[in-house]
Amino acid sequence: MQIGLVGLGKMGGNMRERLRNAGHEVIGYDTNPELSDVKNLVELADRLAAPRAVWVMVPAGRVTQSVIDQLGGILKPGDTVIDGGNSRWTDDEKHAEELAKRGIGFVDAGVSGGVWGLENGYALMVGGEKEHVDRLKPIFDALKPEGPYGYVHAGKVGAGHFAKMVHNGIEYAMMQAYAEGWELLEKVPSVENVREVFRSWQEGTVIRSWLLDLAVNALDEDEHLDKLRGYAEDSGEGRWTVEAAIDNAVPLPAITASLFARFASRQDDSPQMKMIAALRNQFGGHAVEKK
Amino acid sequence: MQIGLVGLGKMGGNMRERLRNAGHEVIGYDTNPELSDVKNLVELADRLAAPRAVWVMVPAGRVTQSVIDQLGGILKPGDTVIDGGNSRWTDDEKHAEELAKRGIGFVDAGVSGGVWGLENGYALMVGGEKEHVDRLKPIFDALKPEGPYGYVHAGKVGAGHFAKMVHNGIEYAMMQAYAEGWELLEKVPSVENVREVFRSWQEGTVIRSWLLDLAVNALDEDEHLDKLRGYAEDSGEGRWTVEAAIDNAVPLPAITASLFARFASRQDDSPQMKMIAALRNQFGGHAVEKK
Amino acid sequence: MQIGLVGLGKMGGNMRERLRNAGHEVIGYDTNPELSDVKNLVELADRLAAPRAVWVMVPAGRVTQSVIDQLGGILKPGDTVIDGGNSRWTDDEKHAEELAKRGIGFVDAGVSGGVWGLENGYALMVGGEKEHVDRLKPIFDALKPEGPYGYVHAGKVGAGHFAKMVHNGIEYAMMQAYAEGWELLEKVPSVENVREVFRSWQEGTVIRSWLLDLAVNALDEDEHLDKLRGYAEDSGEGRWTVEAAIDNAVPLPAITASLFARFASRQDDSPQMKMIAALRNQFGGHAVEKK
Amino acid sequence: MQIGLVGLGKMGGNMRERLRNAGHEVIGYDTNPELSDVKNLVELADRLAAPRAVWVMVPAGRVTQSVIDQLGGILKPGDTVIDGGNSRWTDDEKHAEELAKRGIGFVDAGVSGGVWGLENGYALMVGGEKEHVDRLKPIFDALKPEGPYGYVHAGKVGAGHFAKMVHNGIEYAMMQAYAEGWELLEKVPSVENVREVFRSWQEGTVIRSWLLDLAVNALDEDEHLDKLRGYAEDSGEGRWTVEAAIDNAVPLPAITASLFARFASRQDDSPQMKMIAALRNQFGGHAVEKK
Repeated sequence: MQIGLVGLGKMGGNMRERLRNAGHEVIGYDTNPELSDVKNLVELADRLAAPRAVWVMVPAGRVTQSVIDQLGGILKPGDTVIDGGNSRWTDDEKHAEELAKRGIGFVDAGVSGGVWGLENGYALMVGGEKEHVDRLKPIFDALKPEGPYGYVHAGKVGAGHFAKMVHNGIEYAMMQAYAEGWELLEKVPSVENVREVFRSWQEGTVIRSWLLDLAVNALDEDEHLDKLRGYAEDSGEGRWTVEAAIDNAVPLPAITASLFARFASRQDDSPQMKMIAALRNQFGGHAVEKK
Repeated sequence: MQIGLVGLGKMGGNMRERLRNAGHEVIGYDTNPELSDVKNLVELADRLAAPRAVWVMVPAGRVTQSVIDQLGGILKPGDTVIDGGNSRWTDDEKHAEELAKRGIGFVDAGVSGGVWGLENGYALMVGGEKEHVDRLKPIFDALKPEGPYGYVHAGKVGAGHFAKMVHNGIEYAMMQAYAEGWELLEKVPSVENVREVFRSWQEGTVIRSWLLDLAVNALDEDEHLDKLRGYAEDSGEGRWTVEAAIDNAVPLPAITASLFARFASRQDDSPQMKMIAALRNQFGGHAVEKK
Repeated sequence: MQIGLVGLGKMGGNMRERLRNAGHEVIGYDTNPELSDVKNLVELADRLAAPRAVWVMVPAGRVTQSVIDQLGGILKPGDTVIDGGNSRWTDDEKHAEELAKRGIGFVDAGVSGGVWGLENGYALMVGGEKEHVDRLKPIFDALKPEGPYGYVHAGKVGAGHFAKMVHNGIEYAMMQAYAEGWELLEKVPSVENVREVFRSWQEGTVIRSWLLDLAVNALDEDEHLDKLRGYAEDSGEGRWTVEAAIDNAVPLPAITASLFARFASRQDDSPQMKMIAALRNQFGGHAVEKK
Repeated sequence: MQIGLVGLGKMGGNMRERLRNAGHEVIGYDTNPELSDVKNLVELADRLAAPRAVWVMVPAGRVTQSVIDQLGGILKPGDTVIDGGNSRWTDDEKHAEELAKRGIGFVDAGVSGGVWGLENGYALMVGGEKEHVDRLKPIFDALKPEGPYGYVHAGKVGAGHFAKMVHNGIEYAMMQAYAEGWELLEKVPSVENVREVFRSWQEGTVIRSWLLDLAVNALDEDEHLDKLRGYAEDSGEGRWTVEAAIDNAVPLPAITASLFARFASRQDDSPQMKMIAALRNQFGGHAVEKK
């Protein structure tokens, strides 16, 4: 099948390769001419036979909005746009509506797999109307991992990004779970081989997982993680997960704790703990640490 | 190798079977004569050639204490007791000291695997002195899963149960992670196939794990878990994990949130939320729900 | 001073009374003709001499938006609108811009005090440009409590509602603090007089506060709160506080825990805890409670 | 009334002064001879007429244990020991039993008030049998604040320290509530006068309290707390509160979050966040901050 692919960065570039390996014809566009197969989006559209499918794989927010706006002016009725970036699910409905006015279909695809996707395949969570999704099946089949899993048509427009967002929220709390356990084990003198404890957990335990395998890899590179700072970014999807929970009055204590731990990790000093220190000093004459 | 096994319940019984399948001679004792191979602990000791190894697999706390006390009076210098139950790591050092006075070795073994252990093997986390642990290697090899993982000599006496305890703490937070994500997905109308989203995650995602596989099994039996109450016991090890964290000044926000969610799940009504309702009514005249 | 007041419900009606008691001329409008001094907003504007000040005290969101839209069409350059409702601070900037196009000033006022405000005065947190705020000083002085506190010009447009929102977030966590402590005291048999413990705390302790006084009032009415359900609404401002924290990468663990506790209090059964129960059953054969 | 007082540090010394100001005869003992009225505990006992009352005000744990052991050997049947230190409530029952064997009564007294107690009085939460408590009423009356509050006979032996412990747990979460709110306000540019916002809250708001007054004092000394580090000790009672909650299966999310925030504030770098950073790098190739 023929597909246009906009955005050929680390993810998009690997996806182009995986699609071509599967025998699909991919016309890629990127603002970096060294990566791009065409000069611009108009040429991209010209190179594709109708009905076209164009997969957008660019940063969420303004860049995605801009590409979708442009494609709305270039594509024709019957064509389909797939947003495979990390867009917020609330954007999807807007994009679908705008494109629908011109007869263009819209599908949102949450994509997981990171740097391992080229080789192992990308897990895909897809939202959109059945007619648009079904037509893209060969593309999804090529991108997804082999075997029965790794692909789902999750529901209506937005459901793909929503499912991927929740996936990331769960990911935050799972990472936090291992991280908390690791810190506690490292703290206790009687446990002499924390790395080997983690390694042993890879079989026969309730907590075996791919993330655990990665933790062992990391500890094999740096047994006590001495070379790292305890500093963690967050990508936006954890925040959106908590916001979606608030909108729906769903309590998410573990996922939210994991997000807040990342916020705190990025502070050189904690303003709120200054206030705690100040209050302790006020009522108890407790010593405070001056800068 | 020859071994005595005290406690032939669900776990102990399956372990006896797995050890026998591996060619070991197991003399089992249980207070239930239908399960037991011998009449009492004295006969158990008589049936084993010195130096003896006796694996204790009974409920943590008083029952374990009583069995170890009795074995201390029956066994001889050079023998070894293994506590494979869910004992608190703080008990291990006491048990080791008591037995050491009589020249008897002590090894603590945290055992994971549940109902799946007979077939797949039990993950073992072991604490104790090298000389005691090494002698039991054939037993550990028979119990553990095949392959390179599933067994660790974690450190000194207590380290095995400590590692198993932290394993369970991590388990609590991982379960909570999936549970929070599942509730949020179920709440949002655009996601029409939550079970299929979970199923799809089993390959290619960052959050694939054995617990995720189990979640899919559970959803296949009861798609929306309509037949269950949201009521969850806790086994003690989650509590001990938080207490160990407090002793060591390690923050465990996600694991603790998971423990507290279980506490709350078992309350018919929440006293603390009655106080919240009462206060809202006092200052704002907000309506309260009367019983 | 002369002022228009739109919205004469529980809050607005009491504020009209407090303003009149202080000698101000208040023209009130409400959709309920029994409460209203005028027939409509046009008549309200006619009854006020320029430059007019109109205080809007209606439900946040669409109702506030509609009233401000109407006032934008009726009022004249030099007039000022005050939004004293529980609007989200993000709405304030929009309202200020819309009104500024017509030369009308805008001030946002967060108001605390609930049913006690008529007698004790209302704490006011005000945002807006100095020229607009200063002109309204006599009104603020009449509404605020006596003494040096209870009024602040917090900053630019939006700062008043933002400060009030954070006030409510703090309020959530303070209420939760007392509620958690109360539940724990009630649980322990050796503490025989929990209500008297709370009462005693009203002097000489670190935790004495107005909320504590209210808790004692509530316990005097119903010593163990037996007549209440542990069910608590949330008003929106707690949610916005957490969202603002997420936008600013500020960790708010205690405030967020308090919000989530309210969410959970309103669930008849917890979907996430069903998943926990299901997983425990899958791996451990643990009994589950069926419905 | 006559009373012995063991421990004349910051708290004990001030309490001696307050008791003497009220007309009581206080014989004080301290290991520091410059503070002490007598040479040793035997002389202390000799100077008191039977039935004696001796108030112990020394560090919890081993020091308190040692003093109570010594008093057990020196005092006579009918005498009473009061433990006014920050002992864990679980110690009280042991102390009461040991002393009861010799016919000596025991009362536990949780004391709040810090450096403000000499002037304002100390809030007292007392546990023990009615006959022992009632005899000490004149002492309690002298120590407590004026007015109807600040003293409670909370229940049996241990109830006083338990109530004081819960008081401190509540204190942790209240401090955290203000601290979180303060950090959020400081982060938002539209709020220009955070200190004045806090000051204004001292009247007419739901969150007015003594701790809020102290926060304003602290901000008056150092408007943005620039001179402090965000570093907070914890005194033990917060930990015990969480442990008591775990023992009783009571969820304490806000209090526990406050305790964990203090733990984290004392870490130069967070081990658990190193693991988060390592995992992000493993699956996503995300950049990590090296040391």
